[in-house]
Amino acid sequence: MIDMINFEALFKVTYGLYIVCSGDEDRGNGFISNTVFQVTSEPAKFAACCNKNNFTSELIEKHGHFSVSVLHQKTDSKIYGSFGYKSGKDFNKLEGMNVKYGITRTPIILDDSIAYLECKVVHKFDVGTHLLFIGELIDAQLLDETNEPITYSYYRQIKKGIAPKNAPTYIDKSKLETNTAPIKSGKYKCTVCGHIYDENKEGVRFADLPDNWKCPVCGADKEDFIEV
Amino acid sequence: MIDMINFEALFKVTYGLYIVCSGDEDRGNGFISNTVFQVTSEPAKFAACCNKNNFTSELIEKHGHFSVSVLHQKTDSKIYGSFGYKSGKDFNKLEGMNVKYGITRTPIILDDSIAYLECKVVHKFDVGTHLLFIGELIDAQLLDETNEPITYSYYRQIKKGIAPKNAPTYIDKSKLETNTAPIKSGKYKCTVCGHIYDENKEGVRFADLPDNWKCPVCGADKEDFIEV
Repeated sequence: MIDMINFEALFKVTYGLYIVCSGDEDRGNGFISNTVFQVTSEPAKFAACCNKNNFTSELIEKHGHFSVSVLHQKTDSKIYGSFGYKSGKDFNKLEGMNVKYGITRTPIILDDSIAYLECKVVHKFDVGTHLLFIGELIDAQLLDETNEPITYSYYRQIKKGIAPKNAPTYIDKSKLETNTAPIKSGKYKCTVCGHIYDENKEGVRFADLPDNWKCPVCGADKEDFIEV
Repeated sequence: MIDMINFEALFKVTYGLYIVCSGDEDRGNGFISNTVFQVTSEPAKFAACCNKNNFTSELIEKHGHFSVSVLHQKTDSKIYGSFGYKSGKDFNKLEGMNVKYGITRTPIILDDSIAYLECKVVHKFDVGTHLLFIGELIDAQLLDETNEPITYSYYRQIKKGIAPKNAPTYIDKSKLETNTAPIKSGKYKCTVCGHIYDENKEGVRFADLPDNWKCPVCGADKEDFIEV
């Protein structure tokens, strides 16, 4: 007998978290990615995996370059909210951010970043819902040597974040064996990003939070939460 | 003025460590990889980046499937030695290992593994010195829920391991700014895997180690070490 696939096993694969950006001074955009990795050392080339529906994918195709900012563990939740759960088609994500324009003029996010890479696209591979852009490294700099890079595992376990639907690592909760929704648990889930507000841990009843309270991960409104 | 590329920045990209295997009951092989990652969620597909010279690449091309065993932090150094720094062309790496044969008959290493994935190749992309095999997930199981997956950063910082020359993330030490070899430091470097034996930390002079002493990482002989 063959066991069912246990999707919990997929959480044992290790990733970092990055902002992948493209565009130029006139129009740039970026998104939170956990799938950035080196594919060759001579020359140094990196792959970035992007959903075909991402606005950033359009920009990478148009401009032929991308940047990767490596986020640290203390990254402001608003960064995840803005770059992870919202589309740049609707607004300019780069507004108000600390942005450097690289050798290729690609925007590079410096906020909460400990290092960045800048790459020129040399291959594009279609893997289904996503594109793999392979870029040759043209610049790389360290920005902060004190903070540790955040891992996706840390984001999931400590920050209680989940991958959005466009992510390569998105897992429908119904596939997980541990999907047994507690009843009257004092837990409220953000329907935008999946963040769980746990009354027992926070010490404040969800109902007692002010009406203008926002999801600490994605900035969604209080009314976007449901009891789970 | 444009700054030089700082290759130290590349160490901020996060990876896990895995044994990627292929073959069948008659002849199987595997190698240590840090570049395994999910590329799509519907269906779940994974990429594995393999040097074209790796024997395992030949086997993946021949058989059309591969397995990924996720190593934990306490993984026996001999595993890195055998699977990371030696070629399976010369000997059978799977001998003496705890191997399961998967749905596709691909060998799956169970030693020091906390989870495994089994994938059927659906795309193969040439990225230069390496191939990116994209496999659709056909099985995934958890093996151990107590140990943590090892990250490449942990391997580098805590275990003092370095990437072998065939790895996508190999960095020639001459490219690193911190490459200033200490003189009479009591440090001896393994010329096979780069492991540093530090007399000050170990409390035993290198000269006093027995002649049959082996590198704890790759199993190389004492005479393969040089003073650095």
